[in-house]
Amino acid sequence: MTTVSLDTINSPADLRALDRSELSELADQLRDFVLQSVSRTGGHLSSNLGTVELTVALHHVFNTPYDRIVWDVGHQSYPHKILTGRREGMAGLRQRGGISGFPRRSESEYDAFGTAHSSTSISAVLGMAVAARNAGEDRQHIAVIGDGAMTAGMAFEALNNAGVTPGVNVLVILNDNDMSISPPVGALNRYLARLMSGGFYAAAKNVGRAVLQHVPPVLELARRFEGHAKGMVSPSTLFEELGFNYVGPIDGHDLDALIPTLENLKALGGLQFLHVVTRKGQGYKLAEADPVLYHGPGKFDPSVGIQKPGTPARQTFTQVFGRWLCDMAAADDRLVGITPAMREGSGLVEFEKQFPMRYFDVGIAEQHAVTFAAGLACEGQKPVVAIYSTFLQRGYDQFIHDVALQNLDVTFALDRAGIVGADGATHAGNYDIAYLRCVPNMVVATPSDENETRLLLNTCFRHPGPASVRYPRGAGAGVEVRAGLDAVPLGQGIVRREGKQIAILAFGTLCQAAMEAAGRLDATVADMRFVKPLDEALVERLATSHKAIVTLEEAAIMGGAGSAVLEFLARKGLQVPVLQLGLPDQFIDHGDQAALLAELGLDAAGVERSIRSRYPDLA
Amino acid sequence: MTTVSLDTINSPADLRALDRSELSELADQLRDFVLQSVSRTGGHLSSNLGTVELTVALHHVFNTPYDRIVWDVGHQSYPHKILTGRREGMAGLRQRGGISGFPRRSESEYDAFGTAHSSTSISAVLGMAVAARNAGEDRQHIAVIGDGAMTAGMAFEALNNAGVTPGVNVLVILNDNDMSISPPVGALNRYLARLMSGGFYAAAKNVGRAVLQHVPPVLELARRFEGHAKGMVSPSTLFEELGFNYVGPIDGHDLDALIPTLENLKALGGLQFLHVVTRKGQGYKLAEADPVLYHGPGKFDPSVGIQKPGTPARQTFTQVFGRWLCDMAAADDRLVGITPAMREGSGLVEFEKQFPMRYFDVGIAEQHAVTFAAGLACEGQKPVVAIYSTFLQRGYDQFIHDVALQNLDVTFALDRAGIVGADGATHAGNYDIAYLRCVPNMVVATPSDENETRLLLNTCFRHPGPASVRYPRGAGAGVEVRAGLDAVPLGQGIVRREGKQIAILAFGTLCQAAMEAAGRLDATVADMRFVKPLDEALVERLATSHKAIVTLEEAAIMGGAGSAVLEFLARKGLQVPVLQLGLPDQFIDHGDQAALLAELGLDAAGVERSIRSRYPDLA
Repeated sequence: MTTVSLDTINSPADLRALDRSELSELADQLRDFVLQSVSRTGGHLSSNLGTVELTVALHHVFNTPYDRIVWDVGHQSYPHKILTGRREGMAGLRQRGGISGFPRRSESEYDAFGTAHSSTSISAVLGMAVAARNAGEDRQHIAVIGDGAMTAGMAFEALNNAGVTPGVNVLVILNDNDMSISPPVGALNRYLARLMSGGFYAAAKNVGRAVLQHVPPVLELARRFEGHAKGMVSPSTLFEELGFNYVGPIDGHDLDALIPTLENLKALGGLQFLHVVTRKGQGYKLAEADPVLYHGPGKFDPSVGIQKPGTPARQTFTQVFGRWLCDMAAADDRLVGITPAMREGSGLVEFEKQFPMRYFDVGIAEQHAVTFAAGLACEGQKPVVAIYSTFLQRGYDQFIHDVALQNLDVTFALDRAGIVGADGATHAGNYDIAYLRCVPNMVVATPSDENETRLLLNTCFRHPGPASVRYPRGAGAGVEVRAGLDAVPLGQGIVRREGKQIAILAFGTLCQAAMEAAGRLDATVADMRFVKPLDEALVERLATSHKAIVTLEEAAIMGGAGSAVLEFLARKGLQVPVLQLGLPDQFIDHGDQAALLAELGLDAAGVERSIRSRYPDLA
Repeated sequence: MTTVSLDTINSPADLRALDRSELSELADQLRDFVLQSVSRTGGHLSSNLGTVELTVALHHVFNTPYDRIVWDVGHQSYPHKILTGRREGMAGLRQRGGISGFPRRSESEYDAFGTAHSSTSISAVLGMAVAARNAGEDRQHIAVIGDGAMTAGMAFEALNNAGVTPGVNVLVILNDNDMSISPPVGALNRYLARLMSGGFYAAAKNVGRAVLQHVPPVLELARRFEGHAKGMVSPSTLFEELGFNYVGPIDGHDLDALIPTLENLKALGGLQFLHVVTRKGQGYKLAEADPVLYHGPGKFDPSVGIQKPGTPARQTFTQVFGRWLCDMAAADDRLVGITPAMREGSGLVEFEKQFPMRYFDVGIAEQHAVTFAAGLACEGQKPVVAIYSTFLQRGYDQFIHDVALQNLDVTFALDRAGIVGADGATHAGNYDIAYLRCVPNMVVATPSDENETRLLLNTCFRHPGPASVRYPRGAGAGVEVRAGLDAVPLGQGIVRREGKQIAILAFGTLCQAAMEAAGRLDATVADMRFVKPLDEALVERLATSHKAIVTLEEAAIMGGAGSAVLEFLARKGLQVPVLQLGLPDQFIDHGDQAALLAELGLDAAGVERSIRSRYPDLA
């Protein structure tokens, strides 16, 4: 008979009041709640099914929120959210006004640090731990970080610094689940696999009998890596070399292993490193079998699983890119494709199949990805770096210092530019126009639809210097993409509609909204195609033949494409009113992409409204 | 009798034609040439004295330029430059029109990759090595990287990726010289010290008898770390765990150790890691004794060494910051100071002495530095991150995602903003206004002189959110800095001179040039103080009371402070001519700071000239 109910757990204090024998049942209910909830809202699934027991154990053993937990990346924090007062909030997950899909300081005192981009957790908890040390607080600081996130240089920088910082309580929990998906992309993953196999018994004796009673699941994992193991076990792990006390690997789905181990580590304090093995999708057979498919599903019926959709009505920009990459690679054998651990998200699955020797997943390592591309370009290769706009921020210095300054032939395919929808402010692709166009030698292209995306990819790829093509998340309007590898003239826009009085200069896919609004306003619409080089002749022609200019972009207004137009007009001394439409100077929360654009006045109706309001005499 | 002369070595081919017995004499001449040359031009000294033998050995053993050498950071590449046809060019080192202080692809075919920012070399050579593999070329790719540079996450990302990349020839040479300067700042340095001590004999047997004949210098180093060594030697190094064949440590000043070892490694191919121990300043006793003082000296007489200057006439902005930091720390015990391995350069020497528990040198780890600060701020500390403008590019994502988005109270003291002089384009602080102001929540302050720097540091520090104060390299005009910790109103500029017709809106230290030009033009000058928040009321007042506006900044015009003014004027519908003065859309080479500014028309005469040319009827 069930004596415990998840419905009664409104905070970790309720959890800590439970008897330890009840926690296993609670974990089962929590897992089922995660599954049911995500199947109704969409969201991250596999990773959250993998952290159920770890979350229960952490909140049971540690005194949260006094003790700090930072969930690296944070898309595995749903069980944490459910146990910390947001069970009912899960119904509004990732929706406008609802709770975020990531930890957020403003959402709960249990969210010690907002995360989303990978590999920040150890730096953050080290900062907190130093503050606690200096204040004489004896709290614990826990970073829960996946093996993928551990490959980013930032995590190494933090470990390296922590290892020489005296008097801090930092517990790094490595949530190791990589072996179930793609082959390890880095030497560190291979190393962890060796630890898992050969090192298990040696390490396990540190954590006591509780672990040894529960080896089977881990043993099963270990067996897969037997080949790697022979003679490669080192007595002192890499993490010990860096100054941490290494414990593990232990089974992250076994509360009887987790709880006593965490209690021991809590008592020890100092620099502790716990290696936990979990399985993505744990407890839901369909997700266990295909954790990638169930990584971030939309709504589905858990009793039948995700149904393969029919041919989707409209292809995504990511798919347009993926097809172009294969076509161009077939035509030009100098093309190499690089992704920092986003093969699926960036549309490189087919490319990898067709061109395995020219495909490079460098791991979560944006800095390296960019300079690696620069090295390839030095030797006559033509690298295409497929990266989200928000993640290129990680490689910004390398972009300036290694690519642009040396004027090397690297093409950046910037996916998720502009509003990203459910992922929210952390993933916003709002800043790239500003941060790229200020750099000399750079080409910044903003295609207006699917076919233009292919045309501008062709153009930027053929351009023998650094260039970027930015396109948004999701599907376009359904414009047919013509085959072929034709380029368009670099730095030339095209007038899509001839109108009167008002000229709308559109940079990117909001050109569609501009066309619709312009029909009602009888305005001219130019698809500018490039922010840099700017089509100055076109801007001048439009500025002198119209009474007012409107610039439109799905990017921060500050420093954006509209400002490039203003700079040119100022330089030429052309006096014409300009209305800049784009993203305001604020972080934009999660929600439906189209709804957010409408709310920001960037749909056709909003563009029309803004223009009529600003230019009442003209429109 | 000397049979060899450096004067006859015009390329590595000449070097390779020498008998091995002559190389030692050549190295001695090369060292003397470096010392004499740098003493006449200024430049980096200690690091170049440390790489003399390694450079001779590399060009003797490898077939450069067919084989690629990438010098990480690159300020140790003078011996390389001298041996590769630039012996005479050294007289113009780091001067306008002369050779660069760093490797540059455009300068020599022997400079396989331009460097300057740290830790890019392994990524670059891996890219080159993949290109060679795919093209069937059997060349070697060598990254020479210091132990400091090895602590940056980017180097780890590259090692991690290299370790699983089949069929590439990559030789990483770790040039380990840290033990002679400051205490190791990271766990990796401590680890290297352990390798040095305990691991030497075990590793040495791999490289053969040549090494063992020459142990004494290394033994001496080893002895210093004896305490560290007990029982801490691991049979498999971290680098082997990551997939490299580790060899060393060997004495990097002993050609009889270096040459046969390099020949062995060349023959082996694949992923090789050579640990070389050198001494900064080697062979020049004054530099050996104080490698920090001789790191980047100006001109000096090598026979007497660097003379302590008298009280310098004017203090640098770095000194203004350093004094402010100590004063504010004394007043507010929440202040903590963070530097990514730039204690001297950023002016934190005195702060460390006075507040050792509140001083954090996190190593060459800008990403970590920023998020570490965010963690501290979460717990009520008030971190000040002292960082060069160009290096904050490395922490750009962390600045957006961890600091600005969470609206955390972190102050960035951005040194070397604008033209940096002798270091050139790689270190340009030109982009920060554009890349910072597009981010919500951010404050961007641009002090106009030394006293304003202190005032705006006070203001930004007191502001309870993210803020930055940017100031240039070197000394200001000599304005007296008043003590005290007063703030000024956030986002308010101040009119420095009331004039007619033309209003110059100055952002930063070019305000001095503006004042001088304005005197001759009878123009108004506003010291805007802040780019963000912009003093919109002041801009509006000046725009409506003058016939023309001039914006002035030592930053890229594209997306810069002037563009913020344009955006505001466009939004308000204020039609007034605006002339944007600032840095053009090009990379700016090394040279004298003042001369470069004059060349770019940003001294008083240039500002006056530009204004008269643009507004002939008004000025």
